Order: sequence, then structure tokens, then C-alpha cells
Amino acid sequence: MIIKRNHDLIPPKELLDSIRSSDNFLVAAHINPDGDALGTAIAFGAALEKMGKKVVLLDKHRVPEQYRFLPGQDKFHTYETLAHAGYKAEDFQVLVLLDCNDPERIGLENKPQHSFADGLKEKLAAGMNALVIDHHETEKGFGMVKWIEPAAAATGFMAFHLINALGIEISEEMAINLYAAIVIDTGNFRYENATAEVFKVAARLIDLGARPSQIYQELYESWSDSRFRLYLKMIESLDVRDDVVFGVVTKKMFEETGAVSEDTENFVSFPRIVKRVAVSVMLREIGKNEYKVSLRSKGNINVARVAEMFEGGGHKNAAGCRIRADIASAKDLLFEKIKTLQKR
Amino acid sequence: MIIKRNHDLIPPKELLDSIRSSDNFLVAAHINPDGDALGTAIAFGAALEKMGKKVVLLDKHRVPEQYRFLPGQDKFHTYETLAHAGYKAEDFQVLVLLDCNDPERIGLENKPQHSFADGLKEKLAAGMNALVIDHHETEKGFGMVKWIEPAAAATGFMAFHLINALGIEISEEMAINLYAAIVIDTGNFRYENATAEVFKVAARLIDLGARPSQIYQELYESWSDSRFRLYLKMIESLDVRDDVVFGVVTKKMFEETGAVSEDTENFVSFPRIVKRVAVSVMLREIGKNEYKVSLRSKGNINVARVAEMFEGGGHKNAAGCRIRADIASAKDLLFEKIKTLQKR
Repeated sequence: MIIKRNHDLIPPKELLDSIRSSDNFLVAAHINPDGDALGTAIAFGAALEKMGKKVVLLDKHRVPEQYRFLPGQDKFHTYETLAHAGYKAEDFQVLVLLDCNDPERIGLENKPQHSFADGLKEKLAAGMNALVIDHHETEKGFGMVKWIEPAAAATGFMAFHLINALGIEISEEMAINLYAAIVIDTGNFRYENATAEVFKVAARLIDLGARPSQIYQELYESWSDSRFRLYLKMIESLDVRDDVVFGVVTKKMFEETGAVSEDTENFVSFPRIVKRVAVSVMLREIGKNEYKVSLRSKGNINVARVAEMFEGGGHKNAAGCRIRADIASAKDLLFEKIKTLQKR
Repeated sequence: MIIKRNHDLIPPKELLDSIRSSDNFLVAAHINPDGDALGTAIAFGAALEKMGKKVVLLDKHRVPEQYRFLPGQDKFHTYETLAHAGYKAEDFQVLVLLDCNDPERIGLENKPQHSFADGLKEKLAAGMNALVIDHHETEKGFGMVKWIEPAAAATGFMAFHLINALGIEISEEMAINLYAAIVIDTGNFRYENATAEVFKVAARLIDLGARPSQIYQELYESWSDSRFRLYLKMIESLDVRDDVVFGVVTKKMFEETGAVSEDTENFVSFPRIVKRVAVSVMLREIGKNEYKVSLRSKGNINVARVAEMFEGGGHKNAAGCRIRADIASAKDLLFEKIKTLQKR
């Protein structure tokens, strides 16, 4: 059953009823989890526990280093640790998908996997109750009760309203997690989704114990020395052509700095600070004459169209692809495609 | 007994009375104005006009490029344009100092200056009414009525409460300016002064017409090419000692890049992204062996104490001073003072 968009963010009664009437919850965040998925899962799980429910948090992947400051992050299981701890799919009445709406996004695949995942797929096929709480658009039908709010800035923002609607008091731990969730998905209140309502909820979460400066520092000001050294080398590589900026990260740079590929996260966004820059391109060397390309644009330039020319894809202002060429040819090719696109 | 500061931010009755009973206002923001000074002056000036007052906005310096998006920024006069437009000090009943509390900070010096400034000094000496609205600590006695709230995140935050207390409706123009003022002084809601109250006021300003993503782009993603070239040179200059990072901007760098001094704004904040960095120091060459020093710290390190050792000042996590020494000695001296402070 699909519940319509609700701009007042009032959780549907069916969702509240389904939560209230069940006892054993498996709360799952999406693969490669971000702060919204993790923070929401921790806070919602803690709320369920306060209601006297049994709750297990699941993510296929381990909690990334930058999110290990979140209180309660140690409660997450992977499929492996769940099986190892002796859990079986039959132990759970309800599966909750957070910040995603498709079983594939929590790592359930169509091929045989490991014991717990396969058991869960069987139980779902046999009609296990599944709840979906998400702010991403969806056309898929998964979920017995779906609460999808594409207009919501973050799933954590939805969870704030859900926990309130369940009549559960938000603890300091829950407040910190929900605040971090909102910060990640609004770019610390800088994106278009940072509405007055988001600020009001943030204010409430601060009153309840979230500390903006501490959380900001943990999320954005906790670079390792090696990441910073890599950044300095990337900065030196910048090459500006017209309104397009190219940055390069080579294998040699990783070796020289001790940084790893995850450390390049957000590097491509940085040149956006320059007014004239319309497109920022980052090329990361992954093999001889082979590069992973990230593209970011401002305004109306659809870089997904560029990525598609190289069998990649993405969204209008953020896309990616791979390219096989030496670095000079790779830049020339990309520049030419971007310029062709702009002329249209 | 310790007398508590006024955490409710209720403007003093004397201030409201003084504003209500006067007709001609000269509203002055500090030299080298930032978003808090400018945004507050524009919004407060607009509120006075709504009350039927005559208002002139004054800043010794022209509005920096990055703040020219603020609606109403074209209303600012410099001392020169005031004199040129035929204004005389006698035209004004009241001088209002915003985001500062000392006539020197609006460019009035003890030596003879130009016609308007000298006239203003004479009128002040003869008992002209002067109001001070500021959130900086002060020990100076200037001002007939002073409203100083060191706990307030921004003067713009105080002005929001003042305009409300005066019974004036906040227009979209005022909301944008007050929001920008708060963004600048809270580092877009990332500093310790980003309290729940600040978020509540921001929410109100968004309801009244401020657009967070637009204002963020104007303030932080509109760098000129020359500013970016200067940034790349500054980055090359970075020198890390223990948990302190030093950056230098020389006159030569300005010449080579075509950048101007205001282009260095926020450069000092950048190295904070590194987890290990506790204090970031930026030295800008202003003469032979003379530097303007900006200091930023994380957490409990009070860099105002460091700045005070060099006759400067500021806040706990953001302070400034000048230092006369060659660059190596300047860094050594600052490093020593920071380390001494950390050991206490």
C-alpha cells in the first residue's frame, strides 16, 4: 500500500500502528551508508527500544571511520556478524528500510548469498512485514507500509517527526544522531532543502543535546594528515580551461601521501567556490591510462549527459564515468564534450 | 554574586527610548566591514526608515565585492561620498555604532582627517548622542547608551530582537541581510555560538524571505579567479608545527595574482578541516616586517588571549592582532605564545 506525499510530515497511521503492534525489528540502512542512513537508524532503533521492542541494526557495510563518533554506532551488525551472533531471519517480525526503498539497496541480491541474507529473502517472499521510511523518489513496490517524502530534506528529519508521533521522548543520543543525519543531507544547511522547518527541527535537537560545532567538526573537520597531503597535491594539479576545472589524483600521489581512494571524497566539489567555474572534473588514476572521472556542475549544465558519452551516468549536477586514455587526451576529450553540450 | 548577562536578548529600554525619540541617524559599521556589520546596518537602517526616521549608512571602506549581493548595500556612504553629497555632521542627531564599540573602529582617528570625519568628532566631543550595539567584549566607555551582548552569536542576531522590540515588521530585504549577518558570524552554523536560539531566528528569517542556499552561494561560492590564484599560493605557504598551522600571504602574492586584501577572508579557517589542527594562523604582510595576524582555534583554546599579547583582541575561537617582526620570528613568537597558553 502506497501512502501519498504528505507535506506536513505527519507519519501515516498505518505506519504507527504497524510499529506499535510488532515486537522484533530488524532496522536496515543502505549499503555504503552515509550520515543520514546511519544516524536515522540509530535514533529510530533507540526509540523502538524505549517502546520496549527488540531491535537489531543492520548495514551490509561497516560504519565508515568518519561516522564512528555517532553515539550508538557500535550497535550495527553486518550480515556476517548477525549470522556469527546466531541470529536467524525468523527472529524478526518486521524489516524496516531506512533512507532507501529497495531490498537491493540493503545488499539483498537475486543470487544466493550467505545464510542470514538468504533466510531474510525467503521470509520476505513468504510475506514478512516490511516498512519503508525514505525521502528518495521510488517507482518500486517494495514494502507493506511505505512512508516516502521526496520533499523531506533527510530521512532523519522524517524520523524526528515519526518518533514524536510515537510519543517517545528524544534522548541526547537520538538528538545527536538525527542532527548529524540532517547536517549530512543538507550540506550543513547550505542546499536548497534547508527549509525553515529544517532549522526549527535542528533548534529542537540542539535543545535536546546536539552540539552543532562538535558535530560539524566530526563530520567535516576531521581530515587525516594523509588526506590533507593528498588534497594539497590535487590542488597543485588543478588546470583551468575556460569555465571548466580539471583536477588529477594519480597512484603516485596516493603512494606519496599514504592516502586511500575514499580520501578523495568531495575533492571534486571544491573548485565550485570559484564563481566562474561551471564544471569541475576530477580524474583519479585507476590503471595505466585509465581514469575514474567525477563531474560536478553548477546550475543548468547536465553533466550526466557528458558521463553517458563515456558509458557512465548520474544526476544533472553530479555524475561519473571511466575513461581510457592518457591524461592529456582524457582532459581534451572531456573538455570537448562539455563544450559541445554547453553550445546546444 | 555574579551578575548574569542578559541571555534573553531583551534590548534595554534606554536604547528603545533613545531610538524612538530621535529623527536623524548616522548608522556606522566598522572598518573592513564583514557580513555581520553590513547586514546589520542595512537591516537596522531599513527598520529606522520604516519608523519614519532619516537614516544614512556609513562605512569608511567600500562594500567588499562579496557582499554586493546584499539588497540595500548600495545605500552605504563612505566619509568621502558623504562630504561630496553635501552632508555635514550637524545633519545627524544620533550616531549608531554597529558590530563595534569604539569610534576608532569606524575610522575616526585622533589626528585631523577630512571635513566630515572632523565635524563628527567635534559633534561627539560636544555631546552628540551615540548608541552602541555590539557583541564584542569592551572595556571602553564610548556611547551614551550601550547594548553589548558578548554571548550573542552576531550583531545581526541582536538586531533581529531589537527590530522586533521596536515593533517593526521584518521585510524580505531585512531578513536576507540579518540572515547573512548570522551566517558570517556563525560560519554558516558551524561555530560554538550556533545555539538553538540562533537556529530559531534563522528559521524565522527564512519564513520572512531569506534563501539559505542562495545566500550560501553568494557568500562562499563566488570567488574571483584572482582570489582563487591567491588561495593556491597561500596553500603552498602552509607550514605545520605540531597542532598549529601557519599560512602566509605576502605583498608579492597580491601583485602576482591581482587579488586584494579582502580576498584573504576565511583563508585562516580552511586548515581547520585537518583533525590534528588545533590552531590556524594566517599572516598577511602589510609592511616591511609587519603582519596582520588572524587566529582561529577549535574547542577550548582561547586565541583572544594570544591576540591580546600583541595588543589585538577578538573572541575565543577567532581573534586578530598585528605583529612587527620578520616572518620567521613572527611565527616563532606566535607558536611560543600558543604553546604557553595550551599548557596552562
